[in-house]
Amino acid sequence: MWQKLYKMSEKRPLVLVTNDDGITAPGVRSLIRMMNKIGDVVVVAPDSPQSGMGHAITVNNVLYCNPITIDEGPQIEYNCSGTPADCVKMAINEILNRKPDLCVSGINHGANSSINVIYSGTMSAAVEAGIEGVPAIGFSLLDYNYHADFKQAEDYVRDITLSALKEGIPEGVVLNVNIPKLKKAAIKGVKICRQANGYWREDFDKRKSPFGQEYYWLSGEFINQDKGEDTDVWALDNGYISVVPVQFDMTAHHMIQKLNSWEL
Amino acid sequence: MWQKLYKMSEKRPLVLVTNDDGITAPGVRSLIRMMNKIGDVVVVAPDSPQSGMGHAITVNNVLYCNPITIDEGPQIEYNCSGTPADCVKMAINEILNRKPDLCVSGINHGANSSINVIYSGTMSAAVEAGIEGVPAIGFSLLDYNYHADFKQAEDYVRDITLSALKEGIPEGVVLNVNIPKLKKAAIKGVKICRQANGYWREDFDKRKSPFGQEYYWLSGEFINQDKGEDTDVWALDNGYISVVPVQFDMTAHHMIQKLNSWEL
Repeated sequence: MWQKLYKMSEKRPLVLVTNDDGITAPGVRSLIRMMNKIGDVVVVAPDSPQSGMGHAITVNNVLYCNPITIDEGPQIEYNCSGTPADCVKMAINEILNRKPDLCVSGINHGANSSINVIYSGTMSAAVEAGIEGVPAIGFSLLDYNYHADFKQAEDYVRDITLSALKEGIPEGVVLNVNIPKLKKAAIKGVKICRQANGYWREDFDKRKSPFGQEYYWLSGEFINQDKGEDTDVWALDNGYISVVPVQFDMTAHHMIQKLNSWEL
Repeated sequence: MWQKLYKMSEKRPLVLVTNDDGITAPGVRSLIRMMNKIGDVVVVAPDSPQSGMGHAITVNNVLYCNPITIDEGPQIEYNCSGTPADCVKMAINEILNRKPDLCVSGINHGANSSINVIYSGTMSAAVEAGIEGVPAIGFSLLDYNYHADFKQAEDYVRDITLSALKEGIPEGVVLNVNIPKLKKAAIKGVKICRQANGYWREDFDKRKSPFGQEYYWLSGEFINQDKGEDTDVWALDNGYISVVPVQFDMTAHHMIQKLNSWEL
């Protein structure tokens, strides 16, 4: 297998594929098929769904990571017991013999626009790649259906990936791409956006177990407080694909001067 | 208990306390004792260690959250089966009868400077509070020892908390406070900083189980690529407490113009 990988890597870009819905999810299978046309593909993805895992990493438990064959390839695949961020760490630091030219994560079954970027395993995988110096893109389709129609998005995913490979994503930035649930012909194009200012208003669903213990399901409603027409939520609501450049320097630089006026 | 809480809330600030090391960890017990002097304290913290959980939330499982008495108070406490971010959501949306005036998270047993802000459950709890419109501070002590000497940090934690209550933390920002492992007298003061540009170079420790299966421990070395004297890592290395204003708008605004030049 390693000889195959070395041989593969000579000419075409080496593309690492991961996701957060698990290695068998239709979204990542679609992404793998697309990436096979662009480069030499290695998949390191979670062996189970990891939605909402944010940037969790596994520090108090062990990790399993084994080769797996799911279809006839030609990609090489590993399924991993960890989180999406673990998968990327494992791929870059343990499995691959060189840094990939690109990491793509997804295609997520559901939106990762606005504040969801922070809860998203899909985006955390992309951010982890970015932290480790690998250009990265997270892709999400606004359709939570397991059998969503990823075909409609394929040409856009390909074009954005090729542009990223051609232009280069600058260090310190990864791309968060969200795709509306529309037929290809109905998608109006691609908009570069900022993250809309929104949050989830939680509405915990309280229940009682058969044994009398109270428990909760976390559920809620997304609230968009942002009327800007330069946001990802606006773009998606208006039939565009949104591309948000995401950074992992979380410093609020504009606040440093203000804080220096505090008596500390 | 609710009557007590209502009564408590009439005059003093309502302070939500959480952490990621679990509700019985010495770091959070120290923080609770300090906050009892400042306001009326409600604790909603994980029932088990949640280090490295990043901004994970529990979407595929149920949550338990029950009142608990650990010491003689006067704080009110709940232990929760979820992640630090879950605890904050639960507190704000289910347990508290009004929005807290402040959320403090920690004191973490170990550093959350530089890129660790993104892996940190401690900081994710603070960020979650910020997202929900609650001023928030995460505190971390650079000592991984379970019986670390949190007393040395107490005056600084109190002063930073009182300043935040007096000055007000602007919306969209939370504070990441790291404290060096030094005697109080040796701490040189407080520095407002930016997040140092660093990452973890992983070194997976590969082993074989008694049943012949290969598994890994995630371990690595922190690499600071940033020589700036305005960073949190520099401040901590030089005997200062670091305070980084952290934002959860992750948009790389400076990249939007550049991306608009791509042919998409």
